[in-house]
Amino acid sequence: MTIAIIGGTGPQGQGLALRFARAGVEVVLGSRDGARAQSIAEELVAKLPAGSAGISGADNEGAAQAADEFVILAVPFAAHNATLGALKPHLAGKILVDIVVPLSPNDPKIVEMPPEGSATEAAQALLGPDIPVIGALHNVSATTLNNLDWTINCDILVCGNSLDARKKVMDLVGKLGVTTYNAGGASAARSIEAITPILIRINISKAVPFTHAGIKIWAPDH
Amino acid sequence: MTIAIIGGTGPQGQGLALRFARAGVEVVLGSRDGARAQSIAEELVAKLPAGSAGISGADNEGAAQAADEFVILAVPFAAHNATLGALKPHLAGKILVDIVVPLSPNDPKIVEMPPEGSATEAAQALLGPDIPVIGALHNVSATTLNNLDWTINCDILVCGNSLDARKKVMDLVGKLGVTTYNAGGASAARSIEAITPILIRINISKAVPFTHAGIKIWAPDH
Repeated sequence: MTIAIIGGTGPQGQGLALRFARAGVEVVLGSRDGARAQSIAEELVAKLPAGSAGISGADNEGAAQAADEFVILAVPFAAHNATLGALKPHLAGKILVDIVVPLSPNDPKIVEMPPEGSATEAAQALLGPDIPVIGALHNVSATTLNNLDWTINCDILVCGNSLDARKKVMDLVGKLGVTTYNAGGASAARSIEAITPILIRINISKAVPFTHAGIKIWAPDH
Repeated sequence: MTIAIIGGTGPQGQGLALRFARAGVEVVLGSRDGARAQSIAEELVAKLPAGSAGISGADNEGAAQAADEFVILAVPFAAHNATLGALKPHLAGKILVDIVVPLSPNDPKIVEMPPEGSATEAAQALLGPDIPVIGALHNVSATTLNNLDWTINCDILVCGNSLDARKKVMDLVGKLGVTTYNAGGASAARSIEAITPILIRINISKAVPFTHAGIKIWAPDH
């Protein structure tokens, strides 16, 4: 299996590339600058243990074309819609996994949601009903992802209007050794994306004795 | 200290009354029907261990008047605004703790947020700037609260525009033996309230081996 990570040269994209490659999933990093993506891919490969799958680099369109099925979108929100508009012709038959959180440019402790309600819903509106959009992986810290010695300290809430695509993405994300939960339709992204700035606030807080907070779904004590 | 729980005869209100009374906080349950609140208060007192604080009942206005500082609103969302409108004259100098989740009347697995963005924001708009509204305790299951042998399997995210009131509510909720986190301004309630239907979906799901799910903030593994 080969997946694409669009905007894959940022910290979140790099961390996901490392984690997926270590789990045996081939990754093509996409960037506006394909040469930069190739260079970063080489750096990432050097960090991987023996037996990992490969990481290569391409421009965003080339990366999307190289993906069998899953195209992960990991750009800053400011580039979200423009990147998707350019990619749309290359997404037929694929699933777009949107991990983007619309953090306020002025304050990363709050979100500024688009008129559609969330990034995931904006992506679905832009791509139209034939390309399923699934929101996932919003709440995992890039620092955690990039430290391969750490286990990932959060569960992954997965949402989107296509139940079939949701299940496929839950299987994909499950390869990272995390627990995934079906969080329902795309509108659940209004909550899930907005958990990230709450975690950022907790990370910054002097009152909390740790950073890189995650969220977990917890069973009752009985 | 005496707190009021408005709409306190529902399962969430009863569970909170038991938990606060056991923690030494006097509770006045409020209901539209004060006699019903008194009757349920008597039933709850019979479930409490020796040494607990008392639980009494009154109509909603009487309960709000009896509270030193904290008035918890635990009505169904359909009654949210009307209840607050009637209570407003009795809330001067107090803090309104809004635990209401605007679940869709047609599907408890999704929210239908009011135009203000969340129940907490709607309450703040209705009560005006002089009565601080704090959102909290949205995500804890009534079943868990009412089983006094169980520890509460979630952390409590606390939000609202007054930092001072937020801290006071964090202290109050902390008496229940849970960890509280400062989740920021009232707009964070758009995310926090909407976590509840995600938990309800997980509780219903045959794929998840437990019910009464909670969320916890989790430290990284290092």
